[in-house]
Amino acid sequence: MNYTQYFENAVDALKRERRYRTFAEIERDTAHFPRATWHGPQGPRDIVIWCSNDYLGMGCHDDVIEAMCATAREAGAGAGGTRNISGNSHAIVELEAELADLHGKEGALVFTSGYISNETGISTLARLIPDCVILSDELNHNSMIEGVRHAGREKQIFRHNDLAHLEELLRAAGDRPKLVVFESIYSMDGDVSPISAICDLAERYGAMTYLDEVHAVGMYGPRGAGVAERDGVMQRVDVIEGTLGKAFGVVGGYIAAKRAVIDAVRSYAPGFIFTTALPPAVAAAAAASVRHLKNSGAERARQQAQVAKVKDALERAGLPQLVTDTHIVPVMVGDAEACKAASDMLLSDHGIYIQPINYPTVPRGTERLRITPGPCHDDAQVAALAAALVDVWSRLGLPFIARAQAAE
Amino acid sequence: MNYTQYFENAVDALKRERRYRTFAEIERDTAHFPRATWHGPQGPRDIVIWCSNDYLGMGCHDDVIEAMCATAREAGAGAGGTRNISGNSHAIVELEAELADLHGKEGALVFTSGYISNETGISTLARLIPDCVILSDELNHNSMIEGVRHAGREKQIFRHNDLAHLEELLRAAGDRPKLVVFESIYSMDGDVSPISAICDLAERYGAMTYLDEVHAVGMYGPRGAGVAERDGVMQRVDVIEGTLGKAFGVVGGYIAAKRAVIDAVRSYAPGFIFTTALPPAVAAAAAASVRHLKNSGAERARQQAQVAKVKDALERAGLPQLVTDTHIVPVMVGDAEACKAASDMLLSDHGIYIQPINYPTVPRGTERLRITPGPCHDDAQVAALAAALVDVWSRLGLPFIARAQAAE
Repeated sequence: MNYTQYFENAVDALKRERRYRTFAEIERDTAHFPRATWHGPQGPRDIVIWCSNDYLGMGCHDDVIEAMCATAREAGAGAGGTRNISGNSHAIVELEAELADLHGKEGALVFTSGYISNETGISTLARLIPDCVILSDELNHNSMIEGVRHAGREKQIFRHNDLAHLEELLRAAGDRPKLVVFESIYSMDGDVSPISAICDLAERYGAMTYLDEVHAVGMYGPRGAGVAERDGVMQRVDVIEGTLGKAFGVVGGYIAAKRAVIDAVRSYAPGFIFTTALPPAVAAAAAASVRHLKNSGAERARQQAQVAKVKDALERAGLPQLVTDTHIVPVMVGDAEACKAASDMLLSDHGIYIQPINYPTVPRGTERLRITPGPCHDDAQVAALAAALVDVWSRLGLPFIARAQAAE
Repeated sequence: MNYTQYFENAVDALKRERRYRTFAEIERDTAHFPRATWHGPQGPRDIVIWCSNDYLGMGCHDDVIEAMCATAREAGAGAGGTRNISGNSHAIVELEAELADLHGKEGALVFTSGYISNETGISTLARLIPDCVILSDELNHNSMIEGVRHAGREKQIFRHNDLAHLEELLRAAGDRPKLVVFESIYSMDGDVSPISAICDLAERYGAMTYLDEVHAVGMYGPRGAGVAERDGVMQRVDVIEGTLGKAFGVVGGYIAAKRAVIDAVRSYAPGFIFTTALPPAVAAAAAASVRHLKNSGAERARQQAQVAKVKDALERAGLPQLVTDTHIVPVMVGDAEACKAASDMLLSDHGIYIQPINYPTVPRGTERLRITPGPCHDDAQVAALAAALVDVWSRLGLPFIARAQAAE
């Protein structure tokens, strides 16, 4: 039996559909972030990263790096075990207290990734609620979809951010327990969910709420707790899930909730129980980042300023951006091959790195370049970005938006 | 609807069954590992860790810690994105080359944890093989069980290390594609699988093999590639899965295999695609550890020496150890409450930390203390361990083994 052929066929299918992904090999330069070295086919080259999810550059912040180094030297490079078997470090316990405080909840629980937070978090919560119906936004992240699937409960998908549809499904679920699962900022379109209105519905129909804030924590709200904090509804959400790997700049994920919820997930979730804990050095770095962003609004303000400049520059250039209220700036291409070509030209000819976003991450026909301006991008880099995009759009014959239309 | 009550009930059920877990809060001391600080109810206390999965103390090795610190300072505390979107660091690419070389395979792929390697690795492999039957050892780790479950393929469980049963199931699967999923060292009993004989069967019946070596990598074989290397059968195993979080002392997991297999998993596995990459600092620390253990057999030799001393001391003391050929030394208690009590007394009265292992990690009635001696335990610590266990066994009225019987 030739097993290799199955895997070659699977990869060939992706290549035929122009969905085969290559990863740009990147070496970040903390002293000059978002500048980095690209290890490409012609050897190392200086580039500017415009697609990082280290949204605020905290992964390059001295306090964060030094917390990682100091704790590695004191407590080692790893945890040495699962949370139950020798891996429950002082640093991870402190991080969980920091996160519970951030979200105004009784407790928090750290996982090895945001992916696992959602996968094992959602599936465990739903399994602990007998006869539960899960109501899930149709654009939820893959990790949430997997969590819903692995719960083995009845699921109902509501149309994206559609309150009327959600209400219809809540009503139809009658007296059964219900878990509403949604995000605050959807990362590919950069749009925001109506958290308060969803909480209204959840209260009216007796549902529990689970909110993914991975693209919001660190960046929204007076202490960086996310959109629910900004909107003044954090206390109305039952479970808030976040990541330590995006605006906090490190790696890992978490949930924050009432003590009973945290204790139950801690005690029942296989993806929590049966895995080595995050290293104390990683936990200490993440805690330093959370603490910094609780007390400093400077990074958030500067991010918003640079985001506004990018949006403005793209609009003036007639580039087809998806207008959002957030720090995510999608520029639409609408074709997988053109999207890849645009990304390649930006990298090779302009030293600008923006990964193409193609199916299955976004629907076919909505392929895009997803730009994430941050506080470390300077104004010259913003101008160079707009000029490079115009050059690439022109050379590839991609459509511009007429000025009048853009101004509508 | 009172959702809190569901979670309280779930936790109460664990407490009634004496399965509720408390985590000892530990602060390791790299300069004096396995010594550490326990943050217990009476404040900080010095202890010796005897249950670490940092089996060789590599998490406290200077080369590993300094690689983490140097790379954090150069490239940041986090990767900044998924592997596809700006997170494919130079350090993680180098780590994968190191791991492919370690196992003599064409390629390797790093995941955020060993748990995810198995969960998304097994499920993705099986989904890419049409009509595949999965044959899985009954004592496989939870992460492999979840991988098998999420594959959605037909599964057949073979009795633990039972070649006749495996052969019966392989024969029954006829011409269908088959994936045999097993471990080299089973972590709770410390026993070893007959890898060579399983490969014989796999070849005879045309099955693909997937071997979990998480409790073996770093510790067995001339370069620390695991039991398959030691037994000279590494090339006969199709996919080797390992961890960076146990003997390598850091965090993360991986698979090593033919290029086509790696490329397919890289391209299709949701738990790989949709998650932030391991930080470059973590990857660099892991690579330093792998490199060190490829070239140094000193840690392995010293580990085996200290393991032999512990086994000898326990035998002389008449303590009921499960005799194994590996570095894992289970001392059997056979009762959940007594096991917890023994662990508590060891910690409180003797400053010795050995977490109780109760159901569901092991079957009821086989509750145990699982001791993992390493190269950093000195002879005085071995003697103190045996004396402390004798004291606790006596005070709890746990059975000793008669000397004549122990000598059989």
